[in-house]
Amino acid sequence: MNKTYASIITIGDELLIGQVVDTNSSWIAQELNKIGILVKHRVAVGDVWEDIWAALDEESKKADIILITGGLGPTADDITKPLLCKYFNGTMVIDQPTLDHITHIFEEVLKRPMIERNAKQAEVPDTCTVLKNDRGTAPGMLFKKEHKVFISMPGVPHEMKFIMTNHVLPMLPELYNTGVILHRTLLTAGIGESFLAELIKDFEESLPNHVKLAYLPNYGMVRLRLTTWGTDSTSLTKELDDLFNTLKINVKEYLVVDKDHPMEMVVGQLLNERKQTVATAESCTGGYIAHLLSIHPGSSTFFTGTVVSYANIIKERMLDVSHEILTTVGAVSEETVIQMAKSVRELMHTDYAISVSGIMGPGGATDEKPVGLVWVAIADKDKCIAKAFHFRFDRRRNIELTATNALNMLRKFILENS
Amino acid sequence: MNKTYASIITIGDELLIGQVVDTNSSWIAQELNKIGILVKHRVAVGDVWEDIWAALDEESKKADIILITGGLGPTADDITKPLLCKYFNGTMVIDQPTLDHITHIFEEVLKRPMIERNAKQAEVPDTCTVLKNDRGTAPGMLFKKEHKVFISMPGVPHEMKFIMTNHVLPMLPELYNTGVILHRTLLTAGIGESFLAELIKDFEESLPNHVKLAYLPNYGMVRLRLTTWGTDSTSLTKELDDLFNTLKINVKEYLVVDKDHPMEMVVGQLLNERKQTVATAESCTGGYIAHLLSIHPGSSTFFTGTVVSYANIIKERMLDVSHEILTTVGAVSEETVIQMAKSVRELMHTDYAISVSGIMGPGGATDEKPVGLVWVAIADKDKCIAKAFHFRFDRRRNIELTATNALNMLRKFILENS
Repeated sequence: MNKTYASIITIGDELLIGQVVDTNSSWIAQELNKIGILVKHRVAVGDVWEDIWAALDEESKKADIILITGGLGPTADDITKPLLCKYFNGTMVIDQPTLDHITHIFEEVLKRPMIERNAKQAEVPDTCTVLKNDRGTAPGMLFKKEHKVFISMPGVPHEMKFIMTNHVLPMLPELYNTGVILHRTLLTAGIGESFLAELIKDFEESLPNHVKLAYLPNYGMVRLRLTTWGTDSTSLTKELDDLFNTLKINVKEYLVVDKDHPMEMVVGQLLNERKQTVATAESCTGGYIAHLLSIHPGSSTFFTGTVVSYANIIKERMLDVSHEILTTVGAVSEETVIQMAKSVRELMHTDYAISVSGIMGPGGATDEKPVGLVWVAIADKDKCIAKAFHFRFDRRRNIELTATNALNMLRKFILENS
Repeated sequence: MNKTYASIITIGDELLIGQVVDTNSSWIAQELNKIGILVKHRVAVGDVWEDIWAALDEESKKADIILITGGLGPTADDITKPLLCKYFNGTMVIDQPTLDHITHIFEEVLKRPMIERNAKQAEVPDTCTVLKNDRGTAPGMLFKKEHKVFISMPGVPHEMKFIMTNHVLPMLPELYNTGVILHRTLLTAGIGESFLAELIKDFEESLPNHVKLAYLPNYGMVRLRLTTWGTDSTSLTKELDDLFNTLKINVKEYLVVDKDHPMEMVVGQLLNERKQTVATAESCTGGYIAHLLSIHPGSSTFFTGTVVSYANIIKERMLDVSHEILTTVGAVSEETVIQMAKSVRELMHTDYAISVSGIMGPGGATDEKPVGLVWVAIADKDKCIAKAFHFRFDRRRNIELTATNALNMLRKFILENS
């Protein structure tokens, strides 16, 4: 068995001028990893004939599977399909099932007349296998050339995901003996990357060659990932789990969760296990903590609601923060967040409340209250704790850091008080 | 004058297994574009010696400037610095200003003891020019080889941005005669990509060769971008502005804004111009509309606050949706969103209110109310309108689509009623 490698080619000028962020590649890489295929290389090229052609040449030297996204739209800047037709020595033909599907979309779903440009999307090179796209009008296409597989998909994320999930991912393990890749990931908080590295230095040095440790720092937290690769799933799993357990013991003081779960999911699970609920009162984060708490399916069991009191008058009117507090110690203060947390918990009848108020920047700072100063409070029926955080720098980063740290404060509060 | 091309190499296993989304590349590409440098190619490689080495070889054949991010951390998986040292025939030396800076960070900011691992970050190849990183401990490094410039930066976004903004972007126009790249972007809503293409077919065919049109569809809206490149800024600007005006006239029925601004910014500007305010009452979007309205600096002038009534009892208790409505027509209904919008507008004393209630999936659907059904209402002091949207598919996509369409509904409401 050889390792199976994949390359991802993303096509589109919008990727090269930075007008969109490429989220497809990371999703594709995750899914391929699960079935034992390693992404070796990722490349982005513009809507330029020679560059796409060269990328196909180069990536097929590096990988067994070449996944291509983008450039399949109905407009003139989309040149990928004619290029693939030529690259794989084909002739354009109408694919009748695709034409039927497009006709159905226009007649039954969109209820708009279909124009020639749409019908043209049913044309495919006769050298490809069509991968049906239930989510849109541009079908996926699979080509084979010199033992390499090339798969072209639309760049629209949910269309690409449909084709990957329904056609590509089930098919690849049949085409390749892909072996086993295993990952174990844990999340730490409250310790920097370099100190963590020092803490687990002996562990890291003792790792066998086929097990790799990676540090993934993000927003003041560090994820640690162990990866192994091989053929025997049972022995690899046992070895990796043993190593992972040792790692967990090494970092236990800072361990948030022993899965690759984001903080809000960890908090949601804690609440679900306890059949408890939370509400938030948000100023500077403007609803972002609520958004995180509600983004995963099933969040209605533990997340009740939020008051975003962006204007100070709303802190007074809806959250009972006194005019005196607001005019003396101010909206960004321990007193304010404590009142916000208590009030929103009572309003929403929840077990816990999170409240935040801070200065996200770039405006709003004073000498005493610089950009990045954020007060966070956590309340349950018996008590309320508050803490000041001193972030710095950028608005978006401060919003993210505030949300993550507030959720981590709630996590610790739940564990310590239940 | 020749075109100046850049390549971006991002380094890190986390990019290839999909554990993080690369947002650095698009930011770098945007900034380079503004100073007339075209990103020709982007490539992601893992923390693998041969792959990084090969990427440096290959990208330097394609581009004049090679920007490298990632792989500079203090831990063992970060091999970029020793590799660059060898690639550029250097010897590691301590950079005293960097060491002083790291010492300062630990002693004055973090107030934690500095360990050897941190001090080691002050080591750099003696063949590089150090680019000071005020935001972190890993400095940027600039190398020159055979008329090509290589710049290595940390992968942490705000550190990379600091080095780009303070060192790289001011320096590149001095090194290269970069020419002029101009873009004009507008946003449309309410028309699909293929119909838009049909609408502006004649315009597109009449474009001169050096002006390019791109379609950028996203969440049911399509941005159109005109790009031109050359030497004479004045004549290029005039030509592009004339073409852009023609394009605007062609799509006027669907035009949202003639800038590359997201919908929430368009709404914020409309409100600011009118010195008006908005509040939201959100169920299925869980605070995401509030998050969008508050993410840009200065939003406190028009955004007052939000009630996220995720649980139905909060719709009753805080937004006066009657128990009868909730138990007969239900939470996802015209009656509910109308009451939510009216109540939150009164609670928050704002000029306008947006309310949403829907089924985001994957759970919660019934025969009559499928996943993707969302009711949206907009209220001012005189009236309240409501509309049902029928999205489909995925939870995150439905949240995004709901937010964008609700904001667009408010935008039209403001324009029609003021």
